[in-house]
Amino acid sequence: MEQIVEEKIESLNIKGLKIIQNKKWFCFGMDAVLISDFADIKKTDTVVDLGTGTGIIPLLIWGKKEPVKIYGVEIQPEMVELAKKSVSLNHLEDQIHIIHMDMKSLSAQTFEKVDVVVSNPPYIEYQGGIVNPESQKALARHEIACDLEDVINAAARILKQQGSFFMIHRPYRLVDIFSLMRKHRLEPKKIRFVHPKEGQKPNMIMIKGVKGGKMELQVEPPLYVYNHEGVYTKELLKIYELDDQS
Amino acid sequence: MEQIVEEKIESLNIKGLKIIQNKKWFCFGMDAVLISDFADIKKTDTVVDLGTGTGIIPLLIWGKKEPVKIYGVEIQPEMVELAKKSVSLNHLEDQIHIIHMDMKSLSAQTFEKVDVVVSNPPYIEYQGGIVNPESQKALARHEIACDLEDVINAAARILKQQGSFFMIHRPYRLVDIFSLMRKHRLEPKKIRFVHPKEGQKPNMIMIKGVKGGKMELQVEPPLYVYNHEGVYTKELLKIYELDDQS
Repeated sequence: MEQIVEEKIESLNIKGLKIIQNKKWFCFGMDAVLISDFADIKKTDTVVDLGTGTGIIPLLIWGKKEPVKIYGVEIQPEMVELAKKSVSLNHLEDQIHIIHMDMKSLSAQTFEKVDVVVSNPPYIEYQGGIVNPESQKALARHEIACDLEDVINAAARILKQQGSFFMIHRPYRLVDIFSLMRKHRLEPKKIRFVHPKEGQKPNMIMIKGVKGGKMELQVEPPLYVYNHEGVYTKELLKIYELDDQS
Repeated sequence: MEQIVEEKIESLNIKGLKIIQNKKWFCFGMDAVLISDFADIKKTDTVVDLGTGTGIIPLLIWGKKEPVKIYGVEIQPEMVELAKKSVSLNHLEDQIHIIHMDMKSLSAQTFEKVDVVVSNPPYIEYQGGIVNPESQKALARHEIACDLEDVINAAARILKQQGSFFMIHRPYRLVDIFSLMRKHRLEPKKIRFVHPKEGQKPNMIMIKGVKGGKMELQVEPPLYVYNHEGVYTKELLKIYELDDQS
């Protein structure tokens, strides 16, 4: 069966950046925007995005923080092609490098010096059977090509000492996340929960770890997506950079 | 130097219960009220409070949930005496038993069948030197007589399979708490952060663990102590049972 390519170009509201997505595959969501904002990144930093998919996180991070170099690592060849097309469309071939590689093969020698690792990994534990492991959507959502420990382990291997790791994930996995991070010497230093609304449980969590960091966790105030009137909160609009548009 | 005993009797606002405190020592605070409310306890349960101090948690739990039996374990003889006096004052000798014991000596044989363990342990890691390790206040606040692992380990030893553990602690220790709980097979199942106000970082965290429980954490909506006008929130007043007084 031949696959009909359904690509669309979407504007990112930052510095005129655009991204190409494929409606049949996994399209970027709020998680990518949130983690790109949550990550502390300096202009001198080299950043690696593990499981970059369409390349949305490198584009957003470049748009928001302009670090010298961003690598996007992706295992799926179709996604690599799409991400490369987006990089070209934005003329960012010097800043953003999309690398077709399995993150499990990354080593301390793959990159020169990594200051920051970012990831929005698949959330759902793979139980086998139910999903089609060939589909791009399945690989982006389910832990088929890599699981939580693969992501944390890869980050720990490639980061420099005291380098930072930022990940967005689901709150129900928090105990696993903390124990795997500590196992791989990425000490959890900061977390922030994202709640749909005040009074509701969080549906996302953002985590900062530091390679070889000392033990002490900072818990940030919650981030609410919608206010009581059902519209985006001021903080969320600011993250989307929709407040200072004129 | 002779110590002048400065005892005072305070009302607990629940079923006419009273507690005796000593102004020179550690007096109960909001943590005891919050954790007594957070703990899921049935009327048929046997409950153990580790490090009971003045016996405030057994009294509050009896007042709120009336379980058949509550044991309060305390290492300091002066606190044991005070707690026993409070139990007598409230005529609860059949329901609440204060036990003078080091929690490190507790075993699966100490109690018949423990359904629930509760604790509001000392928060501060003991670095030695700075505090007076003889003082009752120091032992209640600093990890001198027991540390976090002693509490979690004792809870894990005495609880029945699928029994519940409830603890209130500080958010900055959360990674330690999770990793020690998992180490001792008390799987973290539910957490709730307590924030002084909306927009502020949490200063307390309440945790539920289940002995031999399956891995999946539930994160509750935040609990706010004060609202924007600087008065207690409705939810906090409800926990203090101040809303239905007439």
